[in-house]
Amino acid sequence: MNLINHKFELAARPVGMPKRSDWNYKEELVRELGDGEVLVKILYISLDPAMRGWMNESKSYVPPVGIGEVMRALALGRVSASRNASFAVGDHVYGPLGVQEFAITDGRAIAKVDPRIAPLPGYLSVLGMPGMTAYFALLDVGKPQPGQTVVVSGAAGAVGSVVGQIAKIKDCRVVGIAGGAKKCSYVVNELGFDAAIDYKTEDLAKALQKYCPRGIDVYFDNVGGDTLNIALAQLARGARAVICGAISQYNNTTPIRGPSNYLSLLINRASMIGFLVSDYAARYGEAAREMAGWMAQGKLKSREDIVEGLETFPETLLKLFTGENFGKLMIKV
Amino acid sequence: MNLINHKFELAARPVGMPKRSDWNYKEELVRELGDGEVLVKILYISLDPAMRGWMNESKSYVPPVGIGEVMRALALGRVSASRNASFAVGDHVYGPLGVQEFAITDGRAIAKVDPRIAPLPGYLSVLGMPGMTAYFALLDVGKPQPGQTVVVSGAAGAVGSVVGQIAKIKDCRVVGIAGGAKKCSYVVNELGFDAAIDYKTEDLAKALQKYCPRGIDVYFDNVGGDTLNIALAQLARGARAVICGAISQYNNTTPIRGPSNYLSLLINRASMIGFLVSDYAARYGEAAREMAGWMAQGKLKSREDIVEGLETFPETLLKLFTGENFGKLMIKV
Repeated sequence: MNLINHKFELAARPVGMPKRSDWNYKEELVRELGDGEVLVKILYISLDPAMRGWMNESKSYVPPVGIGEVMRALALGRVSASRNASFAVGDHVYGPLGVQEFAITDGRAIAKVDPRIAPLPGYLSVLGMPGMTAYFALLDVGKPQPGQTVVVSGAAGAVGSVVGQIAKIKDCRVVGIAGGAKKCSYVVNELGFDAAIDYKTEDLAKALQKYCPRGIDVYFDNVGGDTLNIALAQLARGARAVICGAISQYNNTTPIRGPSNYLSLLINRASMIGFLVSDYAARYGEAAREMAGWMAQGKLKSREDIVEGLETFPETLLKLFTGENFGKLMIKV
Repeated sequence: MNLINHKFELAARPVGMPKRSDWNYKEELVRELGDGEVLVKILYISLDPAMRGWMNESKSYVPPVGIGEVMRALALGRVSASRNASFAVGDHVYGPLGVQEFAITDGRAIAKVDPRIAPLPGYLSVLGMPGMTAYFALLDVGKPQPGQTVVVSGAAGAVGSVVGQIAKIKDCRVVGIAGGAKKCSYVVNELGFDAAIDYKTEDLAKALQKYCPRGIDVYFDNVGGDTLNIALAQLARGARAVICGAISQYNNTTPIRGPSNYLSLLINRASMIGFLVSDYAARYGEAAREMAGWMAQGKLKSREDIVEGLETFPETLLKLFTGENFGKLMIKV
């Protein structure tokens, strides 16, 4: 075939924000397929906060990416050669294909997607991991009841924006926390949140008191740090704080700060509950069908932030941590 | 009647450890009873970690004790006069009677206890608030399953010792954390815990790894601080961390330290759940009956640390925070 693959390998474990020198950008000839293998031409690569954790040495819910290994990433592509009866050339597929142009897989970790049902980027966004995370973490863990107050941090992000919209569909009062007037205006005016708080310019504690006079029933945390801590102090009795991520802490060079207001859990008989989307893999289909229905009815909107060019990966990834991205961040290869 | 009451009023909001000058010790004539009132001669006063929180100004699950008010405390006494048809002279009663020799109450907050069923101190211990706390927080919130590993801090204390014994009754593996060889030996040799860790001399993280090779399924926290933080890092998948107290933090003059390892909740899909015993008031009878049965069978032991003399209150209270008490701390008036 004489195809050339370009890929990013992890060259070093980053300290703080990942730098370009933490990566090796490599070129290689695509090898011949073995029996049962599939060659995928990657079209879109999903950039997710969780990737930062995968670069660390420490034990977590998945093994770290090894030094010299292709960086792990969810991606979407088109089958360009196949020696696997389950996949035909031209099929669109989705899975952990890595930060590269071509991936060879045995097919076990990929699934077919249908570009006639939704545009391809949607499968990395509302119909992909961020959407599944929002759906199950909110509904199965946060368990919001109609009329309750749901607060979500990272409200304009890939997960937070879906959390807030689903909470509105479930007749909750929804307050988003986001950085900057543009994002705040977006979640209120485009997505229908009841209120948004700009954590960069507003006093978060006071604003939460104003918008949540009876306290927070479900706090959905994507960011950690001060935001989590301030929100915990304003939980309502019996509240659920869903711990979905902690993007403010992922590049720390000092130990993570714990939430000093955790005793609010005791005072309010509240819970703080950790969530990982992969536990719900068996139910992704159910969620995707319901969310596709909401999208068709105009109740659920998706916004993507698509950057062109695989070679931009080291810099594009950082947009997640500086708050520069607006919507689901991905690379178009 | 010309009876004299002695009582401790809160004189000032303590900074750090309460000092004698934070109290006023007062003498007064016991007034005549009004219609419906009951005069109780107090026999035993329960000293509990929660009392420290009640002295602070800040909003909590109950209003703070006001300056100039009798210090709030659970106590047990004998009715010495009554103008209330529900209580007769000689009845033994239990309730929030305060740190004093005599209390006058309208009877709504007190309940009768029977000294023929259990010795009187038992009603402030296993059959009182600490026992109810252990019972409901472990069984209803911690939900330990047979064969699971339960770790409890403050293991030799009034709540922790009961938690561990109930967990053994429920066929769990039980590891206690306590301060000092004497307390550790007590929980293993007298109470039947599988292991105990002396946090004063042992490396807690290493000891937990040794005694909980498959992680902690239920972590019952009475102490907060470093102990909570280290335990969180070793939660098993799906674990429950019950937040019952944080005695290491109650006298802080700096902000409470939050558990920096809280993201272990995410990695392990675990929960941290706050508990307040008063939510279970309607079921105290059920718990007391079951625990009295276990006591009669020799499966549940109680140990009290009884100090004589109301006037010792300011110093006796501090034993809770220095770890000097051994068993349920109370004052015999």
